[in-house]
This record gives sequence, structure tokens and C-alpha cells, in this order.
Amino acid sequence: MRPVAILGIGQTKIDEHWDKSLKELAGEAAFAALNDAGIERADSLFVGNMLSPIINHQNQLGTHIADWVGMWGAEATKIEAACGSGAAAFRAGLMAVASGEMESALVVGVEKMTDMAGHDVTSALATAADADYEVEQGVSFVGLNALVMRRYMHEFGWKHADFAPFSINAHANAMHNPNARLHQTITLEQFEKSSMVATPINLLDASPIGDGAAAAILVPAEKLKGRKIMVAGSASATDTIAVHSRRDPLFLAAAYASSKRAYGMAGVTSAEIDVFELHDAFSIMSALSLEACGFAERGQGPRLGLDGEITPKGRVPVCTRGGLKARGHPVGATGLYQIVEVVQQLRGECGETQVADARIGMAQNIGGSGATILTHILRVTD
Amino acid sequence: MRPVAILGIGQTKIDEHWDKSLKELAGEAAFAALNDAGIERADSLFVGNMLSPIINHQNQLGTHIADWVGMWGAEATKIEAACGSGAAAFRAGLMAVASGEMESALVVGVEKMTDMAGHDVTSALATAADADYEVEQGVSFVGLNALVMRRYMHEFGWKHADFAPFSINAHANAMHNPNARLHQTITLEQFEKSSMVATPINLLDASPIGDGAAAAILVPAEKLKGRKIMVAGSASATDTIAVHSRRDPLFLAAAYASSKRAYGMAGVTSAEIDVFELHDAFSIMSALSLEACGFAERGQGPRLGLDGEITPKGRVPVCTRGGLKARGHPVGATGLYQIVEVVQQLRGECGETQVADARIGMAQNIGGSGATILTHILRVTD
Repeated sequence: MRPVAILGIGQTKIDEHWDKSLKELAGEAAFAALNDAGIERADSLFVGNMLSPIINHQNQLGTHIADWVGMWGAEATKIEAACGSGAAAFRAGLMAVASGEMESALVVGVEKMTDMAGHDVTSALATAADADYEVEQGVSFVGLNALVMRRYMHEFGWKHADFAPFSINAHANAMHNPNARLHQTITLEQFEKSSMVATPINLLDASPIGDGAAAAILVPAEKLKGRKIMVAGSASATDTIAVHSRRDPLFLAAAYASSKRAYGMAGVTSAEIDVFELHDAFSIMSALSLEACGFAERGQGPRLGLDGEITPKGRVPVCTRGGLKARGHPVGATGLYQIVEVVQQLRGECGETQVADARIGMAQNIGGSGATILTHILRVTD
Repeated sequence: MRPVAILGIGQTKIDEHWDKSLKELAGEAAFAALNDAGIERADSLFVGNMLSPIINHQNQLGTHIADWVGMWGAEATKIEAACGSGAAAFRAGLMAVASGEMESALVVGVEKMTDMAGHDVTSALATAADADYEVEQGVSFVGLNALVMRRYMHEFGWKHADFAPFSINAHANAMHNPNARLHQTITLEQFEKSSMVATPINLLDASPIGDGAAAAILVPAEKLKGRKIMVAGSASATDTIAVHSRRDPLFLAAAYASSKRAYGMAGVTSAEIDVFELHDAFSIMSALSLEACGFAERGQGPRLGLDGEITPKGRVPVCTRGGLKARGHPVGATGLYQIVEVVQQLRGECGETQVADARIGMAQNIGGSGATILTHILRVTD
């Protein structure tokens, strides 16, 4: 495979975009990325989306968006891996360019979720779980994560308040990201008193849905001169969809496997990662991701938060633009937001939440409760 | 890109499989392909499916099926391009192996459609059209194709009966395919008297839905010795989703573009194609595909049928295993059925409908009313 670089990025604010259609949102991010890259169109389009067949009654989204953004006739396709759809689309675009089949790929992650009543969105999100065994029993997606969090607290002796730093850090960082869904800092007291969703997960453990789109342009690295953002590592791994089928429900085997492969491909270790955009759909997932990717010992993820190591000035900065928790989680778009944000860090564009001398960044996107996990490592080269 | 060959194929009968779940259907085809290939598992899984989020309430189907077929941990993803999902997944698997990233790919197309009431399936299939402009007006998917067929008949002076040979050939060929949905020959008189669906499309112009799965295993050609089925050409192209936005609604621009690229890649012309598994979702589509791919002049597609050229003994054999019309059209699986059937022809396994000395075969899969079109050319080499 030939080396691939990211030539441009784009994103919309995550919000309730009642005045924009699904394709208009995608177009806004796509045009921003094309402008940033300084090109008019790409050879191919890869779209990450999870819920448009259910919420927006639109399939064939690759072709739908290709037409809208002026890429009439181009190859276009949609990739779906639940909340991991964004990074799965990015990896498909990477493969197209790395293989030599395409000279450029526009990758767009898009989701428009707020047109539907909340309980219907909950049902739609449950399609990420196992329909035959989990959903059939009436468990919701947050319910599944709550069972995992409760078991984790029991097994390793943590209190609910010990997870607060993940959410506090995310909200603090989102204050400096104009595209974030939520702009409000939170305190430990607010975290503890927030409304319960599914014990022990309360509102401030959980990421908000939203409407949004993010995009990136991939090209062969050999075509660029000077400073480049390289895709240094890319890997995808899976686990059982049903959490009860896992060998160990408290270990993200697919995060371990995909990060290990990505580290190997990039020739780095976890110690060399300057910034880590992880998939904090729920606070428990932050802890599990940090452990599976080698940043903390088993059961010790919350320690990094309590020790102040996850802030932009810490040893393992995470969610530097707000994470899923405060930047927001438009499910099929999230993986692209993470990649866009790592690029912003490597370009030094993050202002107040800039990680000093960020050279290597990692983005990890998760579909289901740890079922499909994609890890990408980006590196800036001069 | 390195050359890729098809090592194994598998399929289920297309039927109303009320006793099998979506993953069981997929598994049946996947295991058949793995057995045919003589391997226990593949490195990666690519699933083509259109409707499982709506009909089966299951997303993340790549991971769901990977777990079921014993590929725990492997990379897995789902690709969706409406009724073109099967070939789009095949192309994604091809890219993964051709790029060198994977040493093998299992590609499965699967759809389970008969669990839902007919009018709900019609609504689900409408997600292939443009939700904002077409579906909003109340037009169904067959309605869109009926408008195209009526215009074509008006423009080029054909009668409805002139399309009969497409359906008669498909039904005749399906008699010899044990996996076909329909096993009954039809006559011109039956074709003309069949129940109207959307004027001028009647029941015998239209393909039946069904439950089914088909699969193929892709590996680097360099690993095989002796006779091989090579993927000689692969291309995807798109058009506007909304038919009214087309420059010419009677010309499949995406079929023209993708077949042209596939011919170029394979180094062949349409005259060298021994068998053509085309996407006869409706009889009008057979005519349009033959014209766009260079087998007939504009407006002259039906002539090939009337002249007897489309049968297994004709100049351009199409739908040799029954096509969408009689083999059946489990939408996201269809593209894989077409590829499996071309392989069967190149292996000489088609008995009564075997095309003599078939060396080069083409499969063309269409998403929407001509919006996403993928063309694959397979060639047997000694």
C-alpha cells in the first residue's frame, strides 16, 4: 500500500439543525474540507452513517451526497458500523487511495438525529445491539453500558464520582470548540446530582445526540510537499455484538487488537501518543478504552482522570475538543469528528486546548458496546 | 494493486425463510463459500445489505455476521448502496485484498425481506429513491421504473409485449437453478395478461423479493496455482438518485461509465463478454443495461430479446440462472448472486443453461433506478 495523507478537513457545528437536510449538512462539511484542501472535487466519496434508513428514510447515501456536492458520476458508497461508521468510512477511503485505485477520496460522516422523538431515537440506536438476544429482552443501549459500568465499579472498587473527571474535562475543553454541541462547564457536584438515566449512568455520564457532519480528504502522500498529516496507522477489529457473549465484558478486546495493529503499523507505542480522541459515549467507555489501548492498567482507567493526566496539559490528553460528551455524538459522524480534531491538534489550531508539540495523535471510534473498534494514528511530518 | 482471484462461492436458495434468522442465512452462504474454498476462515468480512436496519432492526451487520461465522475479532464492515449493496461489498473486499492490507476477504450479500407486510416492504424499498423529492410525492420504486418504461416505449415505439423475451428467458433459465425463487415457465400470453402493478409494469415485468444470501472468497491470485477465476475488471459509478434530475432518463450513464472502466481494466470489449448477469429488477432495466454497456444501440435493447440473442445459446446470454426476475431479488444479496452465477458459468457448472466455452463473464448490479452501478468482469485463466 502507498502512504496516504490528509489534505483537508471540514465540519459543521453539532446542533439541532432543523433548517438543514441530511445532504445539506453533509455538503457543508464536504465543501469545507474541499476548500481546506484547495481542490474542487475528489475522485471518490465514502460516507459514514448509521441511522438515515430509519430516521431520514434515505438509503444509498453515498450516491445521494455525491450528487449534492457536485461529484456527479463519481464512485460513491456508504459504510455502516453503528457508531463506528465514521472511522469505517475513513478506512474504506484510505484503502481506495492506498491501493492506487483512487487518486483522492472525500470521506464524510453525517447524522441527523433530532427530527425524531427521543424514544424513537432510543429504539433506532438499539439497532447497534444484538436484535435477537439483547434488544429482544428490552434492554436499551444505555442500559447495556450501565450494566457494564455497574460491574466495573463492583469489580474494581470505584465510586460513581471517580468517573467525574472524564465528563468535567470534556465539558471544559468544549468551551473552546465553536462546533461543540454543549458549551457549559460542569462541577463534581453537578456530576453527582445529575438526573439518573440507567443506574449508575446519569445524564452527565452520557453523550448527547445531535445533527452534524465532518469530512476529510485523503490523497497519496507522494503528491504533497512539505508538512504533511500522514495516516500512519489504521486498523479495525471486532468483538461479539452481544455483551453477554464476551469472554470478559470489562475488557475491550477489539480496542486492544485494533490499537495494537495501528501502533505496529505506525511504529509507535502508547507512550508516544500526544493526543487521544477516544470514544466517550459513556464515561465508563473512557476508562475501558484507556486500559485496552495501554494507557492504564486493567481497572485503573479512572485513576488517570483523578490524577489530572487527561487534560490538554496532562500525560494522556483525551477529548481535547469536547469528546462525544460535550462536542456531541451524531453517531455516524463521530468517527470523522475525532479525525478532524486530531488533525487540528497536529496543525496546532486548538488554541486554549492545544496540546504542546503534538506530533502523533490517535482517534478511536467504537460501534456498539465495544463490538466494532477502529483505531487511526496520524502523524505530522516535515 | 495486486491481481485478485475468487477462491470459493456459496449461496442459499432464495425463498421465504421464516425458520432462519438474518445471520443464519448469511452463515449458510458464508460456510458454503468457505467450504468451496477449502479454508476455515478469512481475514476480513464485507457484508452487503440494504434493509436490515428497517426490516430486521439490526445494524452493524458486518460484526454481527463475523461473530456468527466464527471470525471472532476479524475486521468486518457493512456496505450499503441500495440494491447495489452486494457488488459494492464485493468491491470493498476486492480493494482490501488488492491493496495488500488483507490476505483474504469473505464477502456476503444478505437480505431477509419476507418478515414484513408487503406495503411496508414497498416503503422500505422507497429509501432507495430520493426521500426529499421523489418519495415525498408519493411515488413508489416500481412507479419510478414505470415512468421510465412508459417514456421509453413512447420514445422508441416498442409495445409492452416486446419486453416479454426478457422475462420468458429468465423464467426458463431458473427452471434449471435449484436456488431460484420461482420455478415456472411463462408464455407470451401469460406475460401480456398478468396483473398490472404500475402501468405499464405488470407482475411479470417485475422481480420478486425474497430472503437469501450469497458469498464469495477473494484471495491474491499469486497464491493460487492452475485454473483461476480472476477479477479482471471492477468499477463503480453513480448518477443522480432522482430520475427527474437525469440529463437523459432513458440512458444509464452510470452503467456506461462503470462498464467502460471495467472493460478497460480487463482489456476487453463488450463483444468478448460470453455471459452477462444483468440487473433485471424490471424488464425495462434489461433493455437499458444492454444499451448502456454496448450490446445494443440506443432504444434497441428489446431487439436482442426478440431475436433470441439473450438465451444461453444466443450472442449475449443474460440471466442464465434466472436473473432477478426468476432467481429472485433479495436486494442487498443480489450483487453477490450475480457474481456467484458468473463463476458457475466460468467453471462450467450450469448444466442445461451452460453457455458454451464461457471464458469471460460480466455482472452488473444497480442501486436505485440506475443511481449506483457496479460492473465486475471475471475471467477464467489456465
